[in-house]
Amino acid sequence: MSKELKYAVFGAGSWATAIVKILCENLDEVGWYMRSVYTKEHLLKEQHNPNYLSSVEFNTDELILSNDINEIANYADLLIFAIPSAFMQSELEKITIDISNKIVVSAVKGIIPESGLLVGEHFHKVYNVSFNNIAVIAGPCHAEEVALERLSYLTISCADSKKAKAIAKNFSSNYIKTKISDDVIGTEYAVMLKNIYAIAAGIAHGLGYGDNFQSVLMSNAIREMKRFIKKMHKMKRNINNSAYLGDLLVTGYSVFSRNRMFGNMIGKGYTVKSAQMEMSMVAEGYYATKSAQLLNDKNARKTKLPIINAVYEILYEGKDPKKTFTKLTDKLD
Amino acid sequence: MSKELKYAVFGAGSWATAIVKILCENLDEVGWYMRSVYTKEHLLKEQHNPNYLSSVEFNTDELILSNDINEIANYADLLIFAIPSAFMQSELEKITIDISNKIVVSAVKGIIPESGLLVGEHFHKVYNVSFNNIAVIAGPCHAEEVALERLSYLTISCADSKKAKAIAKNFSSNYIKTKISDDVIGTEYAVMLKNIYAIAAGIAHGLGYGDNFQSVLMSNAIREMKRFIKKMHKMKRNINNSAYLGDLLVTGYSVFSRNRMFGNMIGKGYTVKSAQMEMSMVAEGYYATKSAQLLNDKNARKTKLPIINAVYEILYEGKDPKKTFTKLTDKLD
Repeated sequence: MSKELKYAVFGAGSWATAIVKILCENLDEVGWYMRSVYTKEHLLKEQHNPNYLSSVEFNTDELILSNDINEIANYADLLIFAIPSAFMQSELEKITIDISNKIVVSAVKGIIPESGLLVGEHFHKVYNVSFNNIAVIAGPCHAEEVALERLSYLTISCADSKKAKAIAKNFSSNYIKTKISDDVIGTEYAVMLKNIYAIAAGIAHGLGYGDNFQSVLMSNAIREMKRFIKKMHKMKRNINNSAYLGDLLVTGYSVFSRNRMFGNMIGKGYTVKSAQMEMSMVAEGYYATKSAQLLNDKNARKTKLPIINAVYEILYEGKDPKKTFTKLTDKLD
Repeated sequence: MSKELKYAVFGAGSWATAIVKILCENLDEVGWYMRSVYTKEHLLKEQHNPNYLSSVEFNTDELILSNDINEIANYADLLIFAIPSAFMQSELEKITIDISNKIVVSAVKGIIPESGLLVGEHFHKVYNVSFNNIAVIAGPCHAEEVALERLSYLTISCADSKKAKAIAKNFSSNYIKTKISDDVIGTEYAVMLKNIYAIAAGIAHGLGYGDNFQSVLMSNAIREMKRFIKKMHKMKRNINNSAYLGDLLVTGYSVFSRNRMFGNMIGKGYTVKSAQMEMSMVAEGYYATKSAQLLNDKNARKTKLPIINAVYEILYEGKDPKKTFTKLTDKLD
């Protein structure tokens, strides 16, 4: 395997758009599925995505664009999904062809809410994709900075290190450095959990906590993340690697973070509904909070997750952010 | 020991001023030594420090102010030093009384350049203070946020846990939470190293690197810090605790950070001299960089310190920041 494999990206949000741009640096042709007919037509006519990263210009001769998910799934050997987790199930249900022999790469940031499964597990269970053919892409990488070609690092995780290397090669360029890992499950959990912590960071900011507290929150968040992932899938990993800590930091500290922005609104007194209406994008962490809480509740020996618990209580149980965070501050150190 | 012990703070910068404010929440009386006669007179007349955190008002009835370091050293049982490391030696040389039986608390952020020793080691070696009477205060805690009474967490490290607890109690208030630790040496190194990484973060920012890279830099920095401290003083510690990772993050990410600001100017093309002249405050990391580099060079089995090496080359060997960071990016992951 290597360059001869055909790659395709599913989704047309900012992260999907960034990934197509990255791949176009190395591949002569990239398949790209998007639901919206308008987006496809606009791309063909104007060479850019009308809604996300619109400064990025594409050479459409290099793109196989389609609104038919089966056409693109059929075209490619390697399917990269960058669809918000909340829409994955409904999109995947459209696939009628057999994808069990494809390589599936998740760039999705969360658990599929309907199945409660990590994206990789979902593809394994529902589509018979073998674990050796499942990979995950993790940042730290805001799509907006890919558009600006600012140096970013990606981690490609796959149980099969040869595949990880081959994929990594096709993602590498003068502004993307890559690293490989074999911790597919841990990476998927990390990618999901960081969004919850970004919401927490946003809530804290909205409530008026400062930089000193923010750093204590992040220091506790990485320890909580380590406990959570260890409980779910024990293996040797350095939680301070870029795919875990780096990704947490870029999401928790960056102004580009939608999850942080969502949390900030909650901290400032918006209701969950009104904050969601105000934002045109999905804050992945909203769904992740519920999934993480449920996963831990199901576990016989629960892990202490004070930050996730606090965010869950605020988002799903209508608890007061200020009071909940005052209690939380006593559990941090 | 506990409340009956008399506390005194040495120094009149922002951190010293913040510490006096924190102690005044609990103690009826605090000794405060400052070099400047003007600062003392201004404090007595206007109830605030003219130069730092001037929004903080003191009840001067609670303060024993003096420009005579021996007077304050003699007054107190517990001496808290918050003087920039570069001025420690010249200030300490003024002490003529025996302080070997005092408890010495370091709030200094670095190594004493003249002796190459950590502050605690220096007091032990030069002033015969026993290790059980040496403590260190670590953040994450920007003085500016103490002035605003924004919730902050401090770690008090002392080999004698009873003393650590007693000191911690006197630092605790409705806006300060405290934690104790027995890792005096590791904490001192962490406090020193974080300033180097903050300079690196500033240089990266000045050179135009974005949030994605910044988070990779911090993820590598905490791993580098762990290696460095482990080599210097091996013991069980969780490098992700607030005193290490938290302090690194607040320094590396905050706009209040003088070290980050200094690095930013270097990244933007200022020479070291012109950046130092532009800033009225000392960037501790400048001295720390040299100390850390020397300490590692002296070690038989050196540790890989790519970030510290890069900052050292830029600050002390006149290397070009852009080229040096381009090389550095290949060593990070």
